[in-house]
Amino acid sequence: MTVSLLHNSPLWLAAHTCRMSHDNHHLSDSTYDNCGLKDTALIERVGNKLKHKSILEQLVYIFDIDGISRACLQELARHRTARLTARSSRYTLNELRFESPFTEYTDLDYQEYTTDGYNRACSYLVMTTDDRVNRMSILALDNLRDLISSGISNDLAKYALPEAFRTRLQWQIDGRNLQNFLELRSSPDALWEIRQLAHAIYDALPNDHKYLYTPYLK
Amino acid sequence: MTVSLLHNSPLWLAAHTCRMSHDNHHLSDSTYDNCGLKDTALIERVGNKLKHKSILEQLVYIFDIDGISRACLQELARHRTARLTARSSRYTLNELRFESPFTEYTDLDYQEYTTDGYNRACSYLVMTTDDRVNRMSILALDNLRDLISSGISNDLAKYALPEAFRTRLQWQIDGRNLQNFLELRSSPDALWEIRQLAHAIYDALPNDHKYLYTPYLK
Amino acid sequence: MTVSLLHNSPLWLAAHTCRMSHDNHHLSDSTYDNCGLKDTALIERVGNKLKHKSILEQLVYIFDIDGISRACLQELARHRTARLTARSSRYTLNELRFESPFTEYTDLDYQEYTTDGYNRACSYLVMTTDDRVNRMSILALDNLRDLISSGISNDLAKYALPEAFRTRLQWQIDGRNLQNFLELRSSPDALWEIRQLAHAIYDALPNDHKYLYTPYLK
Amino acid sequence: MTVSLLHNSPLWLAAHTCRMSHDNHHLSDSTYDNCGLKDTALIERVGNKLKHKSILEQLVYIFDIDGISRACLQELARHRTARLTARSSRYTLNELRFESPFTEYTDLDYQEYTTDGYNRACSYLVMTTDDRVNRMSILALDNLRDLISSGISNDLAKYALPEAFRTRLQWQIDGRNLQNFLELRSSPDALWEIRQLAHAIYDALPNDHKYLYTPYLK
Repeated sequence: MTVSLLHNSPLWLAAHTCRMSHDNHHLSDSTYDNCGLKDTALIERVGNKLKHKSILEQLVYIFDIDGISRACLQELARHRTARLTARSSRYTLNELRFESPFTEYTDLDYQEYTTDGYNRACSYLVMTTDDRVNRMSILALDNLRDLISSGISNDLAKYALPEAFRTRLQWQIDGRNLQNFLELRSSPDALWEIRQLAHAIYDALPNDHKYLYTPYLK
Repeated sequence: MTVSLLHNSPLWLAAHTCRMSHDNHHLSDSTYDNCGLKDTALIERVGNKLKHKSILEQLVYIFDIDGISRACLQELARHRTARLTARSSRYTLNELRFESPFTEYTDLDYQEYTTDGYNRACSYLVMTTDDRVNRMSILALDNLRDLISSGISNDLAKYALPEAFRTRLQWQIDGRNLQNFLELRSSPDALWEIRQLAHAIYDALPNDHKYLYTPYLK
Repeated sequence: MTVSLLHNSPLWLAAHTCRMSHDNHHLSDSTYDNCGLKDTALIERVGNKLKHKSILEQLVYIFDIDGISRACLQELARHRTARLTARSSRYTLNELRFESPFTEYTDLDYQEYTTDGYNRACSYLVMTTDDRVNRMSILALDNLRDLISSGISNDLAKYALPEAFRTRLQWQIDGRNLQNFLELRSSPDALWEIRQLAHAIYDALPNDHKYLYTPYLK
Repeated sequence: MTVSLLHNSPLWLAAHTCRMSHDNHHLSDSTYDNCGLKDTALIERVGNKLKHKSILEQLVYIFDIDGISRACLQELARHRTARLTARSSRYTLNELRFESPFTEYTDLDYQEYTTDGYNRACSYLVMTTDDRVNRMSILALDNLRDLISSGISNDLAKYALPEAFRTRLQWQIDGRNLQNFLELRSSPDALWEIRQLAHAIYDALPNDHKYLYTPYLK
């Protein structure tokens, strides 16, 4: 998966919010381009220590998340305060029409992926640590390719889509809900792929924002 | 799919909300058990004609939706104001462990579902109008059964799950967002299954509430 | 202030949600009318101990809150996940037109509320523990009465409204956000009136639901 | 009132969202700094014409709104999808302690604002087009000054605050909800001050974003 940060609101904005309640903007040491040391500490104290989480809602992050599985997308969509737009399987399955088969019958009359097939399948499927699962996903992908190539509409063919199928999405979340997301999804209890995603999202954050989220990483 | 209404707030509550702004509860003709004719008309006028949609937010509906596909769940989850809890594929795939195969090799060395397999698969999969798609989904289901039976963890096996796989969920939505859902998802442009779902949800509404939603059905 | 519960979803619904994830509704000991002991304990364990707060979102409470000040309403409105409809000052100030003065000039040419005026003012204003504040609010109320009686439109006169002015509202909140509300607003740091409100809301809850919220009361 | 735009996400982001569904980012004519002509038209077509409003949620605007009345704040807070942090009357009323009186008794034993008092009051109060209302608000402000100066706590004194009292807030809204806000609040039916606010917010938008909102201005 590839996670890139498309946009974020600057850190000083959260300090500006803190100072709104007490009307003490004159104490700020931030400039338009830079969040000062005093303001940086203020955000941490008010947002994390004092738990006035609403100030963190002014920090907004917009990510381009490419290559997670639709299984992972199912879980990601449970974070309903985040706003997402994903690649539509109704509109984009046609790309499979131009692929040659990913599998072939072996001497043993046993359908198996080819080396080339595996490599090409990697751009469509999230592979797991278990080859038997991957083999099944590749068989399903090849079946899907057949269906699409024979002209069956995407709205029907997509029912045979394996959940390993990769998708891409734009994902917007604010700082308050990002803390909650990271805490839940970086946990050892979380699904392995969304755990990887949580870490990739953290890594993609601007360096000067990370201190607000590090305490929530498991 | 089966849609049942588990709970709803009563219709007179929306009239109570209308009357809050103008402080004229003394004009209400509702009782605790029944929304009067005047109040019924008031809700329609304020909520639909005058578009003061916030009064419809006091009408809350909670549904048990059983047997939609995970493909359909992906779309349903885009309605972020509705609150949903779905059966977890991480916890519930084990039921497949106790199934016998859904498919067998024919004389032609061609793997095909059996009549009995098809019938049993219907409780796991949403079948489409195209038998080739269904065949692929059943092959994938059988492969998934193999994986689960051989002891692969659900967190890996689920990547081979076909999106036709049935799920069940509890779904809560308010009247304002239900109008929006019905308008978008009963449209001929919508995916066929979510269109069926939109109509099944409408059918499951209390009869005296339906007049608020009928104009939004396509 | 008077807080009455207009409607709530039943407790067993939250157990139904818990059982959705693991697909074990057959283990429920609830009936349509009653949440069983096992289910009652399950909700507490999943919602409070394990912090799967989303199951508490299926518990919805709708209150009629009468007689809080507009100062308190300002704070209440910060809980943006709750849905509120309040009496509109644009539409309802006219009732003041029919009041006689609340104050009179004393021998000392000093404007003061009368005993009768104080008593009548109590239905319009939230009185504080400090009589000087109350006196100012009553003076402002009397001035407002003058403005309204002289035919000035509500949209202008309302700018002279003191924040002690009473309002009434319908307020809908779910269990997850109610826990957060009670924790923040029953705290000794909270404004005295919203603290009273938090306790009045807790008191108005159905008795069998209270155990989910008691740990959050300060 | 003064409305300044503190931050916004760039216009090309909404085009990036549009292209996510159809996976056609290669057709974009935007750069990091600039939204191309094709992309500008695409946003308008998808977001306004085709009503796929979710793409507009990726446009986020954060405003500093200074000098609206608390009467107007009450209405603004009804837009619950916007996120606001306002100056707290619990913490900031002390500034009144250092003011000299705004009013004096005239020869006729009639309490009236002075010219100097009026001018100073303008920084605390939103004045209306009706002088009688303004006079009442200034009397209330002077009473409030007395209360604060005599050491009464803000948490009590604020109950005598007139709703004309100015506040300042940070306000974050996304494009979808901004369209809704502008449509409702620029209408001739809206309260005069929030109508002014709606226009001031529109004026503060980046010029290249305005075309998305102009159709919603009344």
